[in-house]
Amino acid sequence: MYSFKFQNPTKIIFGKGMIAELSKEIPRDKKILVTFGGGSVRKNGVYDQVVAALKNHTFVEFWGIEPNPKYETLMQAVELGRKENIDFILAVGGGSVVDGSKFIAAAICYNGEPWDLIQKRIKVEKTIPLGTVITLPATGSEMNCGAVISRKSTMEKLVLSTPLNYPKFSVLDPEVTFSLPKTQVAAGLIDTFIHTMEQYLTYPVDAKLMDRWAEGILQTVVEISPRVMDIRPDYDSMANYMLTATMALNDFIAMGVPQDWATHMIGHEITAFHELTHGYTLAIVFPQLLRVMKDEKREKILQYGARVWGITLGDPDDRIESTILRTEDFFRSLGVKTKLSDYGIGEDTINKIVARFEMRGTVLGENKTITPDKVEKILRLAL
Amino acid sequence: MYSFKFQNPTKIIFGKGMIAELSKEIPRDKKILVTFGGGSVRKNGVYDQVVAALKNHTFVEFWGIEPNPKYETLMQAVELGRKENIDFILAVGGGSVVDGSKFIAAAICYNGEPWDLIQKRIKVEKTIPLGTVITLPATGSEMNCGAVISRKSTMEKLVLSTPLNYPKFSVLDPEVTFSLPKTQVAAGLIDTFIHTMEQYLTYPVDAKLMDRWAEGILQTVVEISPRVMDIRPDYDSMANYMLTATMALNDFIAMGVPQDWATHMIGHEITAFHELTHGYTLAIVFPQLLRVMKDEKREKILQYGARVWGITLGDPDDRIESTILRTEDFFRSLGVKTKLSDYGIGEDTINKIVARFEMRGTVLGENKTITPDKVEKILRLAL
Repeated sequence: MYSFKFQNPTKIIFGKGMIAELSKEIPRDKKILVTFGGGSVRKNGVYDQVVAALKNHTFVEFWGIEPNPKYETLMQAVELGRKENIDFILAVGGGSVVDGSKFIAAAICYNGEPWDLIQKRIKVEKTIPLGTVITLPATGSEMNCGAVISRKSTMEKLVLSTPLNYPKFSVLDPEVTFSLPKTQVAAGLIDTFIHTMEQYLTYPVDAKLMDRWAEGILQTVVEISPRVMDIRPDYDSMANYMLTATMALNDFIAMGVPQDWATHMIGHEITAFHELTHGYTLAIVFPQLLRVMKDEKREKILQYGARVWGITLGDPDDRIESTILRTEDFFRSLGVKTKLSDYGIGEDTINKIVARFEMRGTVLGENKTITPDKVEKILRLAL
Repeated sequence: MYSFKFQNPTKIIFGKGMIAELSKEIPRDKKILVTFGGGSVRKNGVYDQVVAALKNHTFVEFWGIEPNPKYETLMQAVELGRKENIDFILAVGGGSVVDGSKFIAAAICYNGEPWDLIQKRIKVEKTIPLGTVITLPATGSEMNCGAVISRKSTMEKLVLSTPLNYPKFSVLDPEVTFSLPKTQVAAGLIDTFIHTMEQYLTYPVDAKLMDRWAEGILQTVVEISPRVMDIRPDYDSMANYMLTATMALNDFIAMGVPQDWATHMIGHEITAFHELTHGYTLAIVFPQLLRVMKDEKREKILQYGARVWGITLGDPDDRIESTILRTEDFFRSLGVKTKLSDYGIGEDTINKIVARFEMRGTVLGENKTITPDKVEKILRLAL
């Protein structure tokens, strides 16, 4: 097991009706910028609950943070927040609204060009404190300090990460997920699954407990999926879905283990060029990445196959391929496609992604062995 | 799944050589009270590492916090801390030193009789900030806000719990565990196992992920035990042992689930009367508690037997008894006895414990159905 440091100060407020707790969690003397996405929270009652909880607070609203939140949009919120002198941000929405709000929180406090915090990786020295009400379980952003931000003008999708951006609190009410479109739920389940994989499916370091906990998330996602995808899901299944999404990316399963993240990095590029939903890109990339990297990942693929899918018999190479097929089947059982061509994406995009990685000198994976030519191989298998 | 709130701000600094990080973790302007147990840290090099790390800090030392830390001893540390005007506490030792230091942290700041914070459950309003260097993985005290304190004069062993007592940081270096006596390691493994059980083996609330994570701890403890108990343990096994002990009692597996704690409460009484090591009392009480409470705990005993011990065939009642026998065998495989009479404890003590529970009106367990007569039944089975 590797040495590590761990600290996650976010408070989780979990359960039915918990949005009302906002009134106690945010100090009365704060001026709040409440950030939203496209407006679904007006239909499912979340907006009304938030406004009711904040009836004794002062707040301004910013609407329109889009999926894969854009620098161009977020800078409008930065302007509003500065003008209104806000000193707390409440993000109400899915991972995109939370990620976007983390950028806003850092950008408001930064005197230079905020994009430099991302692209030039300038250290974030100060942020506005942030709370969240999460409406779409998927990214884990409600309990981590990362954010993925896109820029339209350059077709880039990059990461901002600072410990200052751990939310002070996040409200998780499983009831708000009942009205989600099943396409989004499917993407959220896959995102949760692959977040876990990025921290688990690497090489063994004898981190027995972390392996068990990662497998526990994978097993739970597989087990709850039919109920969660049902047109009338039950509360406990949605509660397990919500909790699992948060626990998959809050460092709880990352203690002392190597991490991969190549599937995400390649997936981000597909989204950057085609606006394809993040979770869908992961379902395309991950199985082929396993095929290309199967020698390096051999032991953990076999362990994953045995413990999550019960694949224990036969030649190891056959078991590896069976495990990958089983994983693809699982994604498809959620109604999600696993090929680039399913979305009309072809060689053109592959060439652009590979060229970009070559230009940046990008090498990916837990061993930094996923060179641009391997990325090309992965994406060609996914055609 | 139940609604819940979760927040654990403790920073974990994990790995070989990490004691040196103390120099950065404690602000230079603090005057530190460093608390120790009986002196084993002088032999295993921990004391020298701590002193080296604090060479630019100001500190005073307090030695002699005993197992089952005593109010009478701790009040001497309170007096020293007040006299020296300390404003940080560094606990260096096992769970007893950390628990004792949490009491010191609260007592120094309290103007009244500090025992009232425990016995009268007066709300703790302020504590001295605390860090820890843990030398014996067992209690989880390094990442939770609880402490168990004993009082000699009244033969009481009671709990102090306040969110103000989460350690600011805890240093976990698996190398410091190599020199531990195997009797202490065995007690630590059992403590870890039963901490998990108190949060897991109750009744089902469809908390699928929490069940998996609890089972992951149990499986890991079972798997690593032979190596951890070996005369020459390896680093990774001790690292897993250390991490598992911390994760078994830091609220990570307690989200949205009922909790029992009857085994602990009964065990504390045995220790209060006989000074028997905490972990040993748990190995006596837990199997008999399962036998007496098997109807209420039926579903979870069957799940535990199946997932941890692979007991899946046969009549459910036979499976329950097999699961309990397997658990007792596991404790005995660590060289730990499972009967009161093994320690010369007899009916006298049972009568005293039952009388005390009757006097206090104590009812225990996740359903508050473990009345004093059930406690008597449990202890008589353990004779």
